[in-house]
Amino acid sequence: MHLFTFTNLGFGSVRSCPKRHSFRTLFNLREQSKMGKDSTVENKQVIFKGYTDGSPVETDMELKLGNVMKLEAPQGSNAVVVKNLYLSCDTYMRGRMRDRHDSYIPPFLPGSAIEGYGVAKVVDSDCPDLKSGDIVSGITNWEEYSLIQNTGQLKKIQQVDGIPLSYHLGLLGMPGFTAYAGFYEACAPKKGDYVYVSAATSAVGQLVGQLAKIHGCYVVGSTSTSQKVELLKNKLGFDEALNYKEELDLEAALARHFPQGIDVYFDNVGGAMLDATIANTRNHGRIALCGILSQNNRNDPQSFRNMFSVISKRITMKGFLQNDFLHLYPRFLEDVTRYYKQGKIVYLEDMNDGLESAPAAFVGLFSGKNVGKQVIRVASE
Amino acid sequence: MHLFTFTNLGFGSVRSCPKRHSFRTLFNLREQSKMGKDSTVENKQVIFKGYTDGSPVETDMELKLGNVMKLEAPQGSNAVVVKNLYLSCDTYMRGRMRDRHDSYIPPFLPGSAIEGYGVAKVVDSDCPDLKSGDIVSGITNWEEYSLIQNTGQLKKIQQVDGIPLSYHLGLLGMPGFTAYAGFYEACAPKKGDYVYVSAATSAVGQLVGQLAKIHGCYVVGSTSTSQKVELLKNKLGFDEALNYKEELDLEAALARHFPQGIDVYFDNVGGAMLDATIANTRNHGRIALCGILSQNNRNDPQSFRNMFSVISKRITMKGFLQNDFLHLYPRFLEDVTRYYKQGKIVYLEDMNDGLESAPAAFVGLFSGKNVGKQVIRVASE
Repeated sequence: MHLFTFTNLGFGSVRSCPKRHSFRTLFNLREQSKMGKDSTVENKQVIFKGYTDGSPVETDMELKLGNVMKLEAPQGSNAVVVKNLYLSCDTYMRGRMRDRHDSYIPPFLPGSAIEGYGVAKVVDSDCPDLKSGDIVSGITNWEEYSLIQNTGQLKKIQQVDGIPLSYHLGLLGMPGFTAYAGFYEACAPKKGDYVYVSAATSAVGQLVGQLAKIHGCYVVGSTSTSQKVELLKNKLGFDEALNYKEELDLEAALARHFPQGIDVYFDNVGGAMLDATIANTRNHGRIALCGILSQNNRNDPQSFRNMFSVISKRITMKGFLQNDFLHLYPRFLEDVTRYYKQGKIVYLEDMNDGLESAPAAFVGLFSGKNVGKQVIRVASE
Repeated sequence: MHLFTFTNLGFGSVRSCPKRHSFRTLFNLREQSKMGKDSTVENKQVIFKGYTDGSPVETDMELKLGNVMKLEAPQGSNAVVVKNLYLSCDTYMRGRMRDRHDSYIPPFLPGSAIEGYGVAKVVDSDCPDLKSGDIVSGITNWEEYSLIQNTGQLKKIQQVDGIPLSYHLGLLGMPGFTAYAGFYEACAPKKGDYVYVSAATSAVGQLVGQLAKIHGCYVVGSTSTSQKVELLKNKLGFDEALNYKEELDLEAALARHFPQGIDVYFDNVGGAMLDATIANTRNHGRIALCGILSQNNRNDPQSFRNMFSVISKRITMKGFLQNDFLHLYPRFLEDVTRYYKQGKIVYLEDMNDGLESAPAAFVGLFSGKNVGKQVIRVASE
């Protein structure tokens, strides 16, 4: 059985990690003293059972107890052992549950712990850039403790007063950066644009809408419950919001909300909503394609009635991935941290407690059960 | 009955036409002397019968004889009377046969002569910028003689040795400019790109492929007969060509022709070919959406299995219309005229003789009967 998989996911550059062992033993001993003589723990895990083409269900994953782990990064490995604090449930992970090797990211390994973004605390380090006690974000595993070999992809978190650590999985993490890069780079927004965001309370969507408001745009979001409609309008500052589940005719609903038409659509769902938006897009409109949450199987055919309008209205549809824009990451962190501290943006988080809650929380993403960014709290600091 | 419709089609700016009548009477008299005492002619026409949503058929049009027309531009009208020499059959005209007013161009008027691009000779002018004997290109009607009120959209043709007048409907006309603007502006081509063109012997496609070759790209075209495959490879200089009607699996056919994948797709057909191309496009590929020739009814749903790849491969799909790029028109004329004179490009034209041949020639566009740009010769100069 594979306990750990170490894949360069392309979300960060792998730094070379020259060996410096001077401080390592000291920290190692300090951590070991907390854990007991042999520095081993029972390491609860969420295992990926096997590939599926449909929408994920809880039984695609399995809680595994009784795995014993040594809290020690092997000498010469450049690895770290971390205690996972927060784990991220992200919709892109569905793609890794399929047995397809033609994507930008490889599939999960059946029998291994699920791999995903997390915030974690270093408990032992063989990497000179990291020491015990450091808080990091990056790719880790769905388990209590992880041995992380690809330390180059880990980001050391500088804690900022008033910003919860878990926000490094959402607002200040990959979803937040996806919103930032997608909005500014793929949408080419202009002040006064009419902006539409689907899955608007999602980890990505909520920031897109708020950035668009700061940019001087008129913003409407779609979501899946009346509660979230209220949150969009009253908490997240969207100009309008709609519950798509209550709309029989999506084209008509969008025409009602955008009598002047849509300039920018940030698409998180694909399918019928994308088609309806094309029908309501203005000349020279821009559509950023970020996700196809509406499709249970990404190979299911999607039907478009309005493709001709992409020509006649000179629409640009742009698929994008955040990791093409990593040069913008420092500016993103600075901008979004500042906006947050200034009270210009807020962030909705849906926190579940305990590793055992992770499978249900992840599955819930695909029926819109979460309200805001879905995070699992595995442990307190 | 409407004999003439005068619509600003947006393909040129309407110049104001201050009245100067000094030379007019002289030319008028000269033309009248050819036509007989009362300067009237019997004016054969092709009439648009009524709206249709399907693929055009000959009976959507009707040859009308016996219409008497005075070859005189009314004083104070700024209009011209022209003798039509060549008329253009273009696929975009199908859109004008539908009763839809939401496009970039209004529908035809039932009972009126079909409107379209033509090359014509001025026989009487009330417009000071034009005089009898001038050769012009622009929007005219499918009839022997036309009264053109919107003279601002007419371009005076400076005849160049070795370039047939009819080329101003193809190579040097709207289709040629569509190819030029679409390739350079919507495709963002780079030297060495793998370029795919559908409907590759069409008025637009054949120039796209040749411009791509000049640009240093590897070019493959698809077409509908083995004869045209040969023309693409041996006459138009494409690197490879395929007959899509002989391919059971379009995705596999493209994978065979582009083992390295496609960087640029110039799409004239939409539908299944577009879907198959997305599957074979490389990361950061660009797709220029120019036409959806494959769709009999532009509202028919098009089914896509590969939309997820637009995201994962960061593909940009860009709908465009040539008239957004009119600032490039002078450069286009200069470049393409030079390439043609240098023998770097050739142009295939499919010429039918006589106005009565126009309906069948137009209908033939939608089953690929034409070989190259479809033109109707109405009269010799």
